[in-house]
Amino acid sequence: MKQNSMQKIAIIGAGAFGFAMAKIIGDKHSDKEIFIFDIQKDYINHIAETRKHPVFHTKTKLSNNIVASHLLSETVENADMVLLAISSVYVRGVINNIKPMLKQGVILLNIAKGLEQKSNLIISEVIKSELKNFKLKYYICSLSGGMIASEVTKLNPLCAEVACEKIAIAKKVSNFIENKNLRLDVTTDIVGVELAGALKNVIAIGAGIFDGLRFGESSKSAFISFASRDAQKLAFAMGAKKKTFESGSQAWFGDLMTTCFGMSRNRAFGEMIGKTGDVTKAIDTMLDQKITVEGFRTAKVAYNIAKRKKLDLPFITMIYKVLYKKMPVQKFVHDFIGNC
Amino acid sequence: MKQNSMQKIAIIGAGAFGFAMAKIIGDKHSDKEIFIFDIQKDYINHIAETRKHPVFHTKTKLSNNIVASHLLSETVENADMVLLAISSVYVRGVINNIKPMLKQGVILLNIAKGLEQKSNLIISEVIKSELKNFKLKYYICSLSGGMIASEVTKLNPLCAEVACEKIAIAKKVSNFIENKNLRLDVTTDIVGVELAGALKNVIAIGAGIFDGLRFGESSKSAFISFASRDAQKLAFAMGAKKKTFESGSQAWFGDLMTTCFGMSRNRAFGEMIGKTGDVTKAIDTMLDQKITVEGFRTAKVAYNIAKRKKLDLPFITMIYKVLYKKMPVQKFVHDFIGNC
Repeated sequence: MKQNSMQKIAIIGAGAFGFAMAKIIGDKHSDKEIFIFDIQKDYINHIAETRKHPVFHTKTKLSNNIVASHLLSETVENADMVLLAISSVYVRGVINNIKPMLKQGVILLNIAKGLEQKSNLIISEVIKSELKNFKLKYYICSLSGGMIASEVTKLNPLCAEVACEKIAIAKKVSNFIENKNLRLDVTTDIVGVELAGALKNVIAIGAGIFDGLRFGESSKSAFISFASRDAQKLAFAMGAKKKTFESGSQAWFGDLMTTCFGMSRNRAFGEMIGKTGDVTKAIDTMLDQKITVEGFRTAKVAYNIAKRKKLDLPFITMIYKVLYKKMPVQKFVHDFIGNC
Repeated sequence: MKQNSMQKIAIIGAGAFGFAMAKIIGDKHSDKEIFIFDIQKDYINHIAETRKHPVFHTKTKLSNNIVASHLLSETVENADMVLLAISSVYVRGVINNIKPMLKQGVILLNIAKGLEQKSNLIISEVIKSELKNFKLKYYICSLSGGMIASEVTKLNPLCAEVACEKIAIAKKVSNFIENKNLRLDVTTDIVGVELAGALKNVIAIGAGIFDGLRFGESSKSAFISFASRDAQKLAFAMGAKKKTFESGSQAWFGDLMTTCFGMSRNRAFGEMIGKTGDVTKAIDTMLDQKITVEGFRTAKVAYNIAKRKKLDLPFITMIYKVLYKKMPVQKFVHDFIGNC
């Protein structure tokens, strides 16, 4: 079929992950047109001039076929695949903007890991709701797994998953992106994969709190194990498939460990809270550094969904209370032992 | 029932974990007799004189009711519970020695996490086989979870599990040991709990290899996720229950993360191999430091059981080949991406 040969790829977002994706896709497909767009003009200018990023992975050079663009239209028009490498809060707006530019049969590949506030929707549903009256055919995919952006550009051996309701499309995306260092499994459980990615950020904030309080890996691991039960319960209640949360899954288990033990933003945010007990200060610090902590918003959405669905999720409730209800971190640890 | 009031506890093994258990049991039960024995005379002398350990947790002081003993008979005779805080290779010999000293209704609480070579038995089965013609009633329990000994003595918040075929005995042991910082869940799945504890050490060696090769948490987590599928497959084939390997379990998930990301012996052993590619040197270093790496032996046993049961366990096979068949660590990483 025609869509098998993707010729033009659009990457929206030249942050740490968007740039990393440009690196691996560009290196693999030197014959294709690959556009990368960002609203940060300095990012785009720097990439256009040097093929390098001014802030992230500054030693990594993109291949010559990559065009850094200031224009969303130039980036998206005629693209066979649009890679959304932006924070979850921006997805709805961006989809609304690019809607008139999308071509028939386009693949929208989401990388954000969050839940939308107010609507309580997962990202693929946000996209769907924005494209409700869209006349052309399109496919939504999600790429998820334990992939810290710097490890992607270092070409470390990594594994992740591509989810799409249509397995053939997931396979097509997986084949297009994977290389000898990056293995991409496929699944139709886009709901499970997106929830795994979103909820693991909430757990990572809790894990970070243990780090900030200077407990060792035993305490932190005990917490993660218990909290992951909450996350699964919520995900299953929202329609996720069991297999996505089993051992061997990269979107869940691999990503959970990466985020809870690696240099992730959500874990670092939790660590600040554990150290200082001061959530407002931790939020300000992250804002100053222009770092999005997806788990902060997701914790609230997860708590609200659980309440509405009458699910008992003690650990997600604890994290929610620390983040939004001034619960002291000492009580968080105390309740951890009592609430399992 | 009479057995509800344990009056005398015997701890065999005054290593890092035996001493940690003496600390928490002694502090909780200042009215009970608690004996601790070790073949290392210098350990016992030092503990008897100072109530402190000469090597491990050197700042931790045991409560006054703890008797450090050179005599196995003095330690074990009349004990209501015998805690086996020794390496798995010594369990058979010790059970054989203490057999004549055991009292009616004794609880044997195992802490070792390994599989016996040649017999391919789990530790509780080793104990059973040594007590085959034993006339008195006895109960075998296993204590397992992510509990790094130093975190136990620091009174960090920790969770673990006590397994016993008789749930009432597991509960009794749990109630006896747990305190406000340590929560012990109970289960009847002693097979699952023991296999979880043994097999996670094998995975931790693999995780350590990734550390030694200086990959980040993404690669290591991807490996752990895939390898844990192998471990479960083997455990289920040997009779473990599904629940023991689900999220929320401390004997599996909590301990797996603790061992793969914390300061564990097995992970450190793997890290040495990843750094140098030299298994013999890594073994010698561990022997010099008198450190038992349970996972080294367990890898071989697991590989043999899998072969006999015709199970396809690519990751356990890979670790086995690195440890016993001189497979280079570079091939280990290469095969990791290809073999999932």
